[in-house]
Amino acid sequence: MRGMQPEHFSTASRSRRWFLSLGAAWGAAIAACRSKPDAPAPTEARVIGAPVSPYGSRSKFETSKRYFSTDTKVPLEEASSRTPLHDTYGIITPSSLHFERHHSGVPEIDPATHTLTIHGLVDRPLVFTVDEIKRLPSVSRIHFVECSGNSSSEWRSSGANDLQRAHGLTSCSEWTGVPLSLLLKECGVKPEGTWILAEGADPGRHDRSIPMSKAMDDCLVAYGQNGEPIRPEQGYPFRLLVPGFEGNMNVKWLRRVKVLDRPAMTREETSKYTDLMPDGTARQFTFYMEAKSLITRPSAGDTMRGPGFYEVTGLAWSGHGAITKVEITTDGGQTWTPAQLQTPILPKAHTRFRFAWNWDGKDALLASRATDESGYTQPPIPALTEVRGFNSNYHNNGIQVWKVSADGGVTNGNRA
Amino acid sequence: MRGMQPEHFSTASRSRRWFLSLGAAWGAAIAACRSKPDAPAPTEARVIGAPVSPYGSRSKFETSKRYFSTDTKVPLEEASSRTPLHDTYGIITPSSLHFERHHSGVPEIDPATHTLTIHGLVDRPLVFTVDEIKRLPSVSRIHFVECSGNSSSEWRSSGANDLQRAHGLTSCSEWTGVPLSLLLKECGVKPEGTWILAEGADPGRHDRSIPMSKAMDDCLVAYGQNGEPIRPEQGYPFRLLVPGFEGNMNVKWLRRVKVLDRPAMTREETSKYTDLMPDGTARQFTFYMEAKSLITRPSAGDTMRGPGFYEVTGLAWSGHGAITKVEITTDGGQTWTPAQLQTPILPKAHTRFRFAWNWDGKDALLASRATDESGYTQPPIPALTEVRGFNSNYHNNGIQVWKVSADGGVTNGNRA
Repeated sequence: MRGMQPEHFSTASRSRRWFLSLGAAWGAAIAACRSKPDAPAPTEARVIGAPVSPYGSRSKFETSKRYFSTDTKVPLEEASSRTPLHDTYGIITPSSLHFERHHSGVPEIDPATHTLTIHGLVDRPLVFTVDEIKRLPSVSRIHFVECSGNSSSEWRSSGANDLQRAHGLTSCSEWTGVPLSLLLKECGVKPEGTWILAEGADPGRHDRSIPMSKAMDDCLVAYGQNGEPIRPEQGYPFRLLVPGFEGNMNVKWLRRVKVLDRPAMTREETSKYTDLMPDGTARQFTFYMEAKSLITRPSAGDTMRGPGFYEVTGLAWSGHGAITKVEITTDGGQTWTPAQLQTPILPKAHTRFRFAWNWDGKDALLASRATDESGYTQPPIPALTEVRGFNSNYHNNGIQVWKVSADGGVTNGNRA
Repeated sequence: MRGMQPEHFSTASRSRRWFLSLGAAWGAAIAACRSKPDAPAPTEARVIGAPVSPYGSRSKFETSKRYFSTDTKVPLEEASSRTPLHDTYGIITPSSLHFERHHSGVPEIDPATHTLTIHGLVDRPLVFTVDEIKRLPSVSRIHFVECSGNSSSEWRSSGANDLQRAHGLTSCSEWTGVPLSLLLKECGVKPEGTWILAEGADPGRHDRSIPMSKAMDDCLVAYGQNGEPIRPEQGYPFRLLVPGFEGNMNVKWLRRVKVLDRPAMTREETSKYTDLMPDGTARQFTFYMEAKSLITRPSAGDTMRGPGFYEVTGLAWSGHGAITKVEITTDGGQTWTPAQLQTPILPKAHTRFRFAWNWDGKDALLASRATDESGYTQPPIPALTEVRGFNSNYHNNGIQVWKVSADGGVTNGNRA
């Protein structure tokens, strides 16, 4: 408190009664987290601060980062990095922390020479430069992108050690771009054109087939992300955005769209990104990311500060539209109570939920489940494995359980 | 096209008829911006790309930056940097490009020792650490912050040369924090407590008085910005967010809130941030940022590519709530046509609008005007100066006119 005029702080001592007025609930929570009277005096700026700058960066005290393993057999083909969801606020994922998944590294593309070709079963094949795309009528929408392999650690293994490693392959951004339907209509799709093949300009030419009905619905050729040009690892100078569909269909570094009369059956939709079922057949073209939710705080790795009220918060989303309900259980699914949904609640976007939990200090199993506007409710993981067996790697939207122990430790409770 | 399988591009040549199907409007626009047949072949990644990374950054090809002058009399006291609104998409301003305004530089604050003290006319003065604030019930909201001095160049001078210099002191973020009302209620505001004084931890101790009615309404102690911790130049580790009120009241690096029975009459609300009226008196406590809009593209400095259709786009906002209408004129205000508003349309937030304009190639005066949910419509600048004279520096929400010349040049048309 040094350096302030004395009157400023004459009454600023801590009172033992200060936590009484917020109601027993949050008052006690504040009491529980109150800092010690012998805490260090706050830092006070004594010197003139830093000047203005052309392009800002985060505080040196903030070090949250994407997680990735360097212990992979084929490092670049398996490359992924995961969003620290436990450290994020609201619904926008910082672009610098948006998850990554790419199969041959992030190409460095000069927008002055990159083009998008639309051809195949069209009347007028076209080639668009980046500048041309940016001049066309545009839309902006907030949407999640989730890798279909997100949460695969929880499918048949004992589970990951924390939220980021288990579920960090989902992120949400405000995307801006040109409707793909506009470009396709401009080319004139022939009546037999029922699918498109989207291909990226990465060295491995990642490509996926997408039904024409989706291509003509809400897909974007997106060049903007959270207000600025899309980041290199998200597809700079533009990516295909296929809202609500599995991440790998949102082809990055988009270079061409070919109109076809059938799916192209690329590697990424035959040997990969299919789900092996118990009878030996494979589910293919599992486009939709189903309704899902995660409690991000508290989550595995956190430590509770003792009994009392906590804000339980997390994210929910669905590839089928808007989230209509998130429910919380603290007793392993015996009882469920609605959480509060933070507005705006947008279709095919992360939705933030919050729930005030009065923890009694005993062992607890904490989980959330989401319901979307189609009426579908996120299932327990056993309900998924009962149908799909244990050979699936993709599309695990099962309920994540966190185990809160009496000693305050929070761990992965999926096998509890 | 080198390196692709021949069949991929056998039909991918440009056709002279390709622009016919989008309707005369946009087809012609595409025709106007079509690149030359002798454009360079697109780059194609030949080498494995970059690996995943812990914290991403933008493409090296993107260089948009905040504008600031280094030619100021008292550099740090007058320090400001301006958002390149002409380069932004959607409604979220990238945190790295959020405008800056500070009076004694950006302090470097260690969140481990920073505190917020609430004292004065309260029953229980309190001191909160950053961790304690972050554990309390939180909300997230998308809001603009605009400096009251934004657009001052257009008040009495001949106007600035471009959008960024004239109007770049407004930005919009998703903010996360604790309601100030929660903290004040916890302290127990005495009946005579009708104002607060909010003070920052910057060396100059920037401070402003705020009516208790606003403090108890929608103010936040905000520690999150666009999903991650608030940026240093925006108040790290937390700032006061006073939605819809002039920027300087959104006190950054917030260190204390004192409850008072009257405004403190600080320097920043007496000698500064008041508006000198024609009769020699000064308007004081001009809190609200009134409804305003700006066409961001095309804007001064752009060059039109010739007659045809253009997407006119921009931003609108109001400190009184949601935007209900944005209208466009292309004839200097003789006729107005509604623009399309991009959802979500949020209160006290930037709202993106779009308008398809068929430019006939002749001189034109292009402008937008916004109406908010209170029914108020943004006025022409002369309507403001008629009442407030020419000595005001603050609160210019007048209509910005861009002059489009037959040669394609776009300039500031406010004096046209």
